[in-house]
Amino acid sequence: MLFFENDYGEGAHERILERLRETNYEKLPGYETDRYCAQAREKIKKACDCPQGEVFFLAGGTQTNAVVIRSLLRPYEGVLAAKTGHISCHEAGAIEYTGHKVLELPEHQGKLQAREVEAYMKKFYGDESHEHMVFPGMVYISHPTEYGTLYSKEELEELYSVCAAYKLPLYVDGARLGYGLMSRETDVTLPILARCCDVFYIGGTKVGALCGEAVVFTKKNAPEHFMTLVKQQGALPAKGRLLGIQFDTLFTEGLYLELGRRAIETAELLKEAFRKNGYTFYLESPTNQQFLLLEDNQARQLSEEVCFSFWEKPDETHTIVRFVTSWATEKEDIEKLEKLLERCRKNAG
Amino acid sequence: MLFFENDYGEGAHERILERLRETNYEKLPGYETDRYCAQAREKIKKACDCPQGEVFFLAGGTQTNAVVIRSLLRPYEGVLAAKTGHISCHEAGAIEYTGHKVLELPEHQGKLQAREVEAYMKKFYGDESHEHMVFPGMVYISHPTEYGTLYSKEELEELYSVCAAYKLPLYVDGARLGYGLMSRETDVTLPILARCCDVFYIGGTKVGALCGEAVVFTKKNAPEHFMTLVKQQGALPAKGRLLGIQFDTLFTEGLYLELGRRAIETAELLKEAFRKNGYTFYLESPTNQQFLLLEDNQARQLSEEVCFSFWEKPDETHTIVRFVTSWATEKEDIEKLEKLLERCRKNAG
Amino acid sequence: MLFFENDYGEGAHERILERLRETNYEKLPGYETDRYCAQAREKIKKACDCPQGEVFFLAGGTQTNAVVIRSLLRPYEGVLAAKTGHISCHEAGAIEYTGHKVLELPEHQGKLQAREVEAYMKKFYGDESHEHMVFPGMVYISHPTEYGTLYSKEELEELYSVCAAYKLPLYVDGARLGYGLMSRETDVTLPILARCCDVFYIGGTKVGALCGEAVVFTKKNAPEHFMTLVKQQGALPAKGRLLGIQFDTLFTEGLYLELGRRAIETAELLKEAFRKNGYTFYLESPTNQQFLLLEDNQARQLSEEVCFSFWEKPDETHTIVRFVTSWATEKEDIEKLEKLLERCRKNAG
Amino acid sequence: MLFFENDYGEGAHERILERLRETNYEKLPGYETDRYCAQAREKIKKACDCPQGEVFFLAGGTQTNAVVIRSLLRPYEGVLAAKTGHISCHEAGAIEYTGHKVLELPEHQGKLQAREVEAYMKKFYGDESHEHMVFPGMVYISHPTEYGTLYSKEELEELYSVCAAYKLPLYVDGARLGYGLMSRETDVTLPILARCCDVFYIGGTKVGALCGEAVVFTKKNAPEHFMTLVKQQGALPAKGRLLGIQFDTLFTEGLYLELGRRAIETAELLKEAFRKNGYTFYLESPTNQQFLLLEDNQARQLSEEVCFSFWEKPDETHTIVRFVTSWATEKEDIEKLEKLLERCRKNAG
Repeated sequence: MLFFENDYGEGAHERILERLRETNYEKLPGYETDRYCAQAREKIKKACDCPQGEVFFLAGGTQTNAVVIRSLLRPYEGVLAAKTGHISCHEAGAIEYTGHKVLELPEHQGKLQAREVEAYMKKFYGDESHEHMVFPGMVYISHPTEYGTLYSKEELEELYSVCAAYKLPLYVDGARLGYGLMSRETDVTLPILARCCDVFYIGGTKVGALCGEAVVFTKKNAPEHFMTLVKQQGALPAKGRLLGIQFDTLFTEGLYLELGRRAIETAELLKEAFRKNGYTFYLESPTNQQFLLLEDNQARQLSEEVCFSFWEKPDETHTIVRFVTSWATEKEDIEKLEKLLERCRKNAG
Repeated sequence: MLFFENDYGEGAHERILERLRETNYEKLPGYETDRYCAQAREKIKKACDCPQGEVFFLAGGTQTNAVVIRSLLRPYEGVLAAKTGHISCHEAGAIEYTGHKVLELPEHQGKLQAREVEAYMKKFYGDESHEHMVFPGMVYISHPTEYGTLYSKEELEELYSVCAAYKLPLYVDGARLGYGLMSRETDVTLPILARCCDVFYIGGTKVGALCGEAVVFTKKNAPEHFMTLVKQQGALPAKGRLLGIQFDTLFTEGLYLELGRRAIETAELLKEAFRKNGYTFYLESPTNQQFLLLEDNQARQLSEEVCFSFWEKPDETHTIVRFVTSWATEKEDIEKLEKLLERCRKNAG
Repeated sequence: MLFFENDYGEGAHERILERLRETNYEKLPGYETDRYCAQAREKIKKACDCPQGEVFFLAGGTQTNAVVIRSLLRPYEGVLAAKTGHISCHEAGAIEYTGHKVLELPEHQGKLQAREVEAYMKKFYGDESHEHMVFPGMVYISHPTEYGTLYSKEELEELYSVCAAYKLPLYVDGARLGYGLMSRETDVTLPILARCCDVFYIGGTKVGALCGEAVVFTKKNAPEHFMTLVKQQGALPAKGRLLGIQFDTLFTEGLYLELGRRAIETAELLKEAFRKNGYTFYLESPTNQQFLLLEDNQARQLSEEVCFSFWEKPDETHTIVRFVTSWATEKEDIEKLEKLLERCRKNAG
Repeated sequence: MLFFENDYGEGAHERILERLRETNYEKLPGYETDRYCAQAREKIKKACDCPQGEVFFLAGGTQTNAVVIRSLLRPYEGVLAAKTGHISCHEAGAIEYTGHKVLELPEHQGKLQAREVEAYMKKFYGDESHEHMVFPGMVYISHPTEYGTLYSKEELEELYSVCAAYKLPLYVDGARLGYGLMSRETDVTLPILARCCDVFYIGGTKVGALCGEAVVFTKKNAPEHFMTLVKQQGALPAKGRLLGIQFDTLFTEGLYLELGRRAIETAELLKEAFRKNGYTFYLESPTNQQFLLLEDNQARQLSEEVCFSFWEKPDETHTIVRFVTSWATEKEDIEKLEKLLERCRKNAG
């Protein structure tokens, strides 16, 4: 069975496993006070060209979102996000559980538009009864988005400038950041990202780690006693080394970007394979998630030999599906997929 | 520097690392639906002689306590715990963050007494205005306790019978359960524990895993949609395999108990070393945490060559300290410690 | 200055003030255990033809919504509501503060459609990853809605039948219920309402009381220890008499409905006055809230002599405004308004 | 039946009822933006000699405590309070519901001691692992306390100076403040109180109002958008006039203090009556709550003719009970009680 279902189907890049083994018997202090966490912090700050950055490690995306968002919002505030944002729909209410509303904005292939954020703010403060409403207190975006799309440098700058004008911290969910940074169609680099937002996280879980996300506060703006909040929300690991060693490895000799590059390479091959065989893309994605619009029987047929995700049913006879490549996808996987697609085409023809 | 500071100073038992490597490229479904989680569940249920058990994996102790406790309490209820219970003092308010009060009871070397729980319940329901108070809704104990002490089978049965009489679920925090089970002075086994409580967790982080705790609901009483709660509280890992493979390994060929046994063995040697050299124990602990009452200058002197934890200052001139052994402690470590103690004694003499 | 801004601009119906004075020195037990609360409960149950009803008194709408909704939802659930529902937008995040998401559905002149609720439920349970999403756990509607519109008996029955099929409790916010019940275009009575939902509240604050809403659980389904939740959420008044006496008075000799009738009478006259003078209604409302689509300069001109609410700006040159009558509106107020409208028309003509 | 059960057994002082009637048909804006709220604010600030004060009105004590405490604490903080503090035990977990721990300190006849607060802070910051614990973030006291006792000016100053040194806001729950201010044994006035704390509330519900507490932030320290928090926690009344008119009346011509004085007068007579008849006081209270240590059969006998509160059972044969006077207690009530006590004494003798 071919596997294109997601980018967390394997364990970790082997260099990570090696480092875990090599360091296994070193006796290290707990709770992210060890030297590997320290090293990883330095390397990340350097990669971001952000010497004033403050870096923290958490184990997974949902907890990272919940902790960061809660730490930035005042109690009367909510977080602005696209209707399709991960926090809006796929985290089981984790943000509302912190007591805050997710204020939904329209999405454009998964992205927010700066001018719509601006319009929202103007309307909000123009409303006489806004003291009876949830104050918009920050902006959440994902990059790449849930649809694999990317903000351009210009879009990011525009959005950040609106945020700055309204004193809204901008937070970027980088669960798949590595794949975004290595897209062939992006002009956003780590330093640019660090410059254009207040806090973001570098996703490890989906980019070669066993688990782990690195939160970077970029403007000397880490909330006071942030680690106590992390602890209170149950997200502080006793063996911080597990996260420190992984990120230290990912940020040694450019491994993180290298893993991103690999997935993009196979994603581009995968796109070509689908294109050549006459498939329709639901939207143009320049990263490792590809969305296709299939006829229902096409989808059924493919699902017998490939693992992929069903996304949505736009009408009675079609299905939108997602194919994902990852750091661990091999070119051979794509070749096999291509053969399958050819076979399907012939059978259908 | 000798290391007796805690039991999470190393990585993981090497068999775990091996299994992670062996399984690394298997493509597995996420969120604890993979086969290793399934296998681990079966092995744990068997080890507990609890075929009807329901097993879930979480990454750490604080999140496990917060999720389990919240899942069992109704909104008007709080959790009864010893004043020294981990949830009472060392989790940064993680329980209160879920909206529930920790109702503190007196502790007896870290333990609750069944009759004090009973007295509390009687007083509570005898109070005419109890509808204006927090209802006691469950009981939390740790085994071993924060002082390394253990409940006897009889104490556990007594407590559970009081709990049953008042319909209070009994929850056992087993962060160090492996060390408790292998104590030379316990009559509590995994099956007995499973029988004498409603839910408990088997601690992995402190007993040989990189991270991970296995929650066991023992009476077909797992709350509905428990995994959605886990997700909502940010505790559901995408790569559930990381927990599944570890627990599968720990419960293969008795590794978990074997790791417990090792720490007890070195703990007993450590006790003897202290005893022989005339040290005073703060209390009698039959597990891997040992508490000593030192004179301040003794403490200072030892701290130059050994890592251990400062616990409390009972008076102006003394200090209570904690020495901990773990699955990774070697007999050589104890021998070195013994030599150090002898040297200190001679210098002092 | 004429006043049509809202229906809480005056104090209370004078019979209420009289009863407060008459009973002022009776020594009554606190926390809604007094005889007036008991009497009011009985009268309300009788008026609802709902002998098994359970009635509780709270002081205001937001707290009532927050307490009732929290009491019915399990922690992994959210509440379905129209995008324009009061809880969705005008309660400062009071529902999210309880930890629950408001799941927004499209609105049709303020109302939910049964078939859209059904479609939502089908889609939710059809989604393979629904365990990672907020479970829809109840339905909230307001009657009259925020736009003054009403559900017909048939619509209510349809909605309730969908709710029943999916085991979703249906909760009706009756902040302005009195005005809905006495509309000339409704076939919904108190007994019908009680039959067609699981819990609703009878609004006092906007229908002649100083404060107070009466919550009615209609199916012997009041949550356990509901008053403890009320207390915990800060909504239990020490002097429960203040609520008991008011509702006892409102439900004596049909005062509540009589107050509703009065506001409808003046609302109908107000509609006629606007219609005769060529104004455009934004929508058809059969209750005491009337929405008009004005040209901006019309709105400005009127606002010099009348208090009303600005609602929305549908485009650059128009404004939607709200005129409200209440139990305290006098026919003379309408006559004065009518003269003003005539004057405006002549000036414009 | 004589009534000494509590101080919220009657309605409101009649001047309040009169003012409610006189102003009943004035059309006033909602949500505490009316002129009576404004007037009351000014009068209160004047009475407190605190021109920079910021005054808000809430309906009851529990909601006031929950809103004020949540508004002052950062998410990683808890509130220090006496073990017997109202928020520690009699508010159904309302503070924990806001996500914050109540950190209990020993009580001395209901009072905190400045030096114990200081010792707590020193120990907390001395603990190496305090980042894993709940940070003490403010201090809560009640004045009078739950035992009717009072802080002296000196005690208050001392406590406030410790609070200031540790940047802990000091919050005073004044549910019964009027009775404290008029005690014959106090040197604390409203201006002194305003000077010696960061925020306090002037209790109305128990001192002559139908409901209502006036929160005074004394140091230009009202949290941003405080009213939005009040709304979010369900505590903002649509008819703010109900609170404004009451406090305006209470602070006109010294009515509030006058009501306090009356309860003290009858309390002193009540004390004398008990003393003359040989009763034992559980503790010395200089305010309107009096605690007596009765033999069980004494308690039973009295309860046949008087309403009072059972407080606690200190041993098998005794009961501690509470007798309360209020603004509405008449001298005749005391005379009747005195006769009863005499009768009891004779029967016993």
